[in-house]
Amino acid sequence: MRRRSTAHLSPEDVAGGYALACQTSVEEDVVILIPPQEKIERRLRESKRAAKVELPFPYDLHDQPLRKFAVTLEPPSLQDQTDDWSRLRRELARRYALEEIQASLPVLRKLGSVLREGDWTVTVVVELDTWDRTAGPARLIDVLPGERLESLWAVAIDIGTTTNHVWLVDLIGGEVMAQKADYNGQIVRGAEVIPRIIYASKGNGLEELQGLVMETLNRLLKQAAAERSISTDEIYKAVVAGNSTMIHLFAGIPPESIRLMPFITAINQVPPFPAREIGLAINAEGTVDCLPGVASYVGADITSGVVSSGMCDTGELTLFVDIGTNGEMALGDCTWLISCACSAGPAFEGAGVAHGMRATAGAIEEVWVNPETYETTYRVILDEKPKGICGSGLISLLAEMFITGIIDKSGNIDLNLPTKRVREGEHGPEYVVAWADETASGEDIFVTAVDIDNLMRAKAAIYAGFSILARSVGLTIGDVGQLLIGGAFGQYINVEKAIQIGMLPDMPYDKIHFLGNTSVRGAYMALLSREVRQRVVEAGQMITYLELSADNTFFDEFNAAMFLPHTDEIQFPSVKALLEG
Amino acid sequence: MRRRSTAHLSPEDVAGGYALACQTSVEEDVVILIPPQEKIERRLRESKRAAKVELPFPYDLHDQPLRKFAVTLEPPSLQDQTDDWSRLRRELARRYALEEIQASLPVLRKLGSVLREGDWTVTVVVELDTWDRTAGPARLIDVLPGERLESLWAVAIDIGTTTNHVWLVDLIGGEVMAQKADYNGQIVRGAEVIPRIIYASKGNGLEELQGLVMETLNRLLKQAAAERSISTDEIYKAVVAGNSTMIHLFAGIPPESIRLMPFITAINQVPPFPAREIGLAINAEGTVDCLPGVASYVGADITSGVVSSGMCDTGELTLFVDIGTNGEMALGDCTWLISCACSAGPAFEGAGVAHGMRATAGAIEEVWVNPETYETTYRVILDEKPKGICGSGLISLLAEMFITGIIDKSGNIDLNLPTKRVREGEHGPEYVVAWADETASGEDIFVTAVDIDNLMRAKAAIYAGFSILARSVGLTIGDVGQLLIGGAFGQYINVEKAIQIGMLPDMPYDKIHFLGNTSVRGAYMALLSREVRQRVVEAGQMITYLELSADNTFFDEFNAAMFLPHTDEIQFPSVKALLEG
Repeated sequence: MRRRSTAHLSPEDVAGGYALACQTSVEEDVVILIPPQEKIERRLRESKRAAKVELPFPYDLHDQPLRKFAVTLEPPSLQDQTDDWSRLRRELARRYALEEIQASLPVLRKLGSVLREGDWTVTVVVELDTWDRTAGPARLIDVLPGERLESLWAVAIDIGTTTNHVWLVDLIGGEVMAQKADYNGQIVRGAEVIPRIIYASKGNGLEELQGLVMETLNRLLKQAAAERSISTDEIYKAVVAGNSTMIHLFAGIPPESIRLMPFITAINQVPPFPAREIGLAINAEGTVDCLPGVASYVGADITSGVVSSGMCDTGELTLFVDIGTNGEMALGDCTWLISCACSAGPAFEGAGVAHGMRATAGAIEEVWVNPETYETTYRVILDEKPKGICGSGLISLLAEMFITGIIDKSGNIDLNLPTKRVREGEHGPEYVVAWADETASGEDIFVTAVDIDNLMRAKAAIYAGFSILARSVGLTIGDVGQLLIGGAFGQYINVEKAIQIGMLPDMPYDKIHFLGNTSVRGAYMALLSREVRQRVVEAGQMITYLELSADNTFFDEFNAAMFLPHTDEIQFPSVKALLEG
Repeated sequence: MRRRSTAHLSPEDVAGGYALACQTSVEEDVVILIPPQEKIERRLRESKRAAKVELPFPYDLHDQPLRKFAVTLEPPSLQDQTDDWSRLRRELARRYALEEIQASLPVLRKLGSVLREGDWTVTVVVELDTWDRTAGPARLIDVLPGERLESLWAVAIDIGTTTNHVWLVDLIGGEVMAQKADYNGQIVRGAEVIPRIIYASKGNGLEELQGLVMETLNRLLKQAAAERSISTDEIYKAVVAGNSTMIHLFAGIPPESIRLMPFITAINQVPPFPAREIGLAINAEGTVDCLPGVASYVGADITSGVVSSGMCDTGELTLFVDIGTNGEMALGDCTWLISCACSAGPAFEGAGVAHGMRATAGAIEEVWVNPETYETTYRVILDEKPKGICGSGLISLLAEMFITGIIDKSGNIDLNLPTKRVREGEHGPEYVVAWADETASGEDIFVTAVDIDNLMRAKAAIYAGFSILARSVGLTIGDVGQLLIGGAFGQYINVEKAIQIGMLPDMPYDKIHFLGNTSVRGAYMALLSREVRQRVVEAGQMITYLELSADNTFFDEFNAAMFLPHTDEIQFPSVKALLEG
């Protein structure tokens, strides 16, 4: 048994024989004792994955504009022939000071029958204001027979190029009641934003792409609603984050200009609109509020992430990165913020990789390779038979292959190693992580040379972005006080391994924080609070955008980062020491 | 030759041998000289039918909220990556003080391509305000490439139970540029509002009825647009009048409660909405503004008519009636107004009558019956071969048949008269107005006992309404200073004959004014002026509604009026004198 790291272990622990399972290679038969607290922690971590998101701040229903009110009306008579709508408005004005409340045709169409079904007692769902109509008037979203005040559903949505997330929230208590995620259905029309923009510009490509993402989101909404035994019609609002291309496609707005000089969006801040206008499966009249972006390649996922990451709360020089298909990042201390985006590709989300998958049950999320036998040990989410490898597993795997010499600095697989796991496959060299008899499908799970190239490009793009951002303001990565990492896969990453492959800068681990999906979290926070919603706007206004499409230095930095860990080893002293030690 | 009336003729005229063609029976061979001025007048009258509506008041574009503005934007560059929408807003704010202008998704979707097609010069169509949003913000309705300021199209629409009217208006000059009318396609599902309300309450009856009226209106809109060689997409606003049931069906709002105690509407004042929400064939984003009604049976056709009739301009005690399928009427001097409605049926619009038709080319619009031979003479619109009989022709016919004894006071046809024109038809007694060899279809045009009953009911309902309105405020019809008559057919009615059948009260002809379609005219005026639009609201607020559905006196009055001219002959001294003289 060889300990590779003793971080998090006290000298007493080490003396007592404790080892970090993930940092230890087994070199011979051993008996392992798993201490009880470790088991508990592991269980907690699993259940945390499944659900509970803590309230980000003390929540008060009145901090946000969605409301339910129950009212009982005087029934009409020959003495009072006031029409239904005026009758309801009169009472809402009298009891709740809702003057001049407005309603759309679809709500007016159901009003008469609902009033009578509820025997003149109804519950109204009202949106008091929106960001572009802060003084109202209030809008009537729905009217329900009888008193139905027990819940008030809304959703936070993150539309990633590769992965979509939906958090179902009950605004009575403000808590996340269900979380669902899946790959964006648009993937079949291109793995990254550029091919999708091109696809959208041809024939009815835009409508098709909009339809594909709507299918994915609507499926997730239905799953989330089913989990809480509600109808999606009971969901009265959606706050949506996502990069600018995703927001354009979601709203059906042509994204064409995003990819053409001088790279501008049609719109950075889409006005709120009712869900029926795009066919999102929440209540047809429910408001869809797309968070504002900054530029073509710094979208609402970043403004949302900047706010939800809390990077503006410390005053420290902070580097924030949202690792998705585009590595979007911001550097600053929130007296200033500079931002850029670099196309990382979907590899870290498990897409575009032979045996990649999302970080769900059955995904290999961490891999260890025996440096002598090249045999693997791995950890699978929920301890199922492995189905594939998720982003954190791929980072772990790439690092292990590098450290153990299965691949060289350039990422080339060494086919001469004395192991059957290294072999010439259908599409070139590959390395087998799990043999057919271990896997759920009954087929080998392996990583190919192409996969490795994709992973190298992804990590190089992200690191190049870091370098350029820092350099653009006359700093170096070493000046960064903290590194905040968002991204759906992010919370499970092994920092040490991410540094070993040169994806993250070689800085003390305690300065690096994984925050999970900061984009959907920001949307959730904006759903809970008008003030946070406004902070997202302000974050957008503060950000200076660095356009890399027009900047050759990006390609220089990218090429320099296309080695493991980097061409410039001096930037990775801990990795250099490990390799030499 | 026998003169029945010399109204409008001076003693000199009479001495000179002049006679009123319409008031004179030819009893033997005569030579008639038509004075030249009469020919001219007749020609004018024809061309007036076809088009020209005078501006109702001096028009100023700024009195109404629809506008076009041309703007040229600074093209985007790497130095100014402002998104398309913000770029346009910035310029609209700078040049036209259009702060906080709002746009819907469909306009935002086309923005990018239009800006580039117009090489950064575009024309925006903007609605500055609506009645329920008087302080704005402005709404962007359309954006067009280049400078397109030459016209600004809108429509006034009247949705009658039987007949629909569309007036196409160019808001640059404010003039009516095309007029189209046709029967409401809903007629196949019921001739009056009650059967349609019942039909709407079953299955997808509401959707079907909405679709039927939309088909009619959209056909008329296309015809009007074609006449001016424009696309219906260039029509950016519609102001709509109609009775409450018609407005409900048009907007797709269930009208069910209108026919059920206590007879209330779902909504009297529908908020403005974009045309796409109901599929009206104007620009999809164009505002549809339904004028407000007062009650289930006093709708926007009456508020619109009250304003456009000018009944509030004289200070006289005025009786206003809109003779449509519902006889809706208002009495007052505009310090007070009382209103009621009585179902007249569609007979006067030429519907529900064997050979009825609208007042278009080929309609018999006036009939004379020789009191000895019972032979007919008639006048046909545009002097074509007759195709049928329109409302004014039916009134004229009924009066002539009564005066000449073809029918008795109860409306029964005397089958014993020595003429082949009176005969037993398939469905009972009938009277032939035009023989097959005279008509366009080559078939007899006749009126049946059933038709006569329908006409009697129609005229009785209207007169009963007059009586009840006057009585309800302690007055008699004799106290009325002027009688203003609206209705599509109205301007061609022969007053004397309308009095002879007891449809209009027996008052001096110069106190009776035919105004044509006051409903569409009010919509037109509201289109031209915010102030008129507001006056329609105020008219609605001023009106006290008399619910006849719950009032037995209506049936008493109706039954009393089911004679020619009336059970109480004293109310019709001129008719009594004619019959006795």
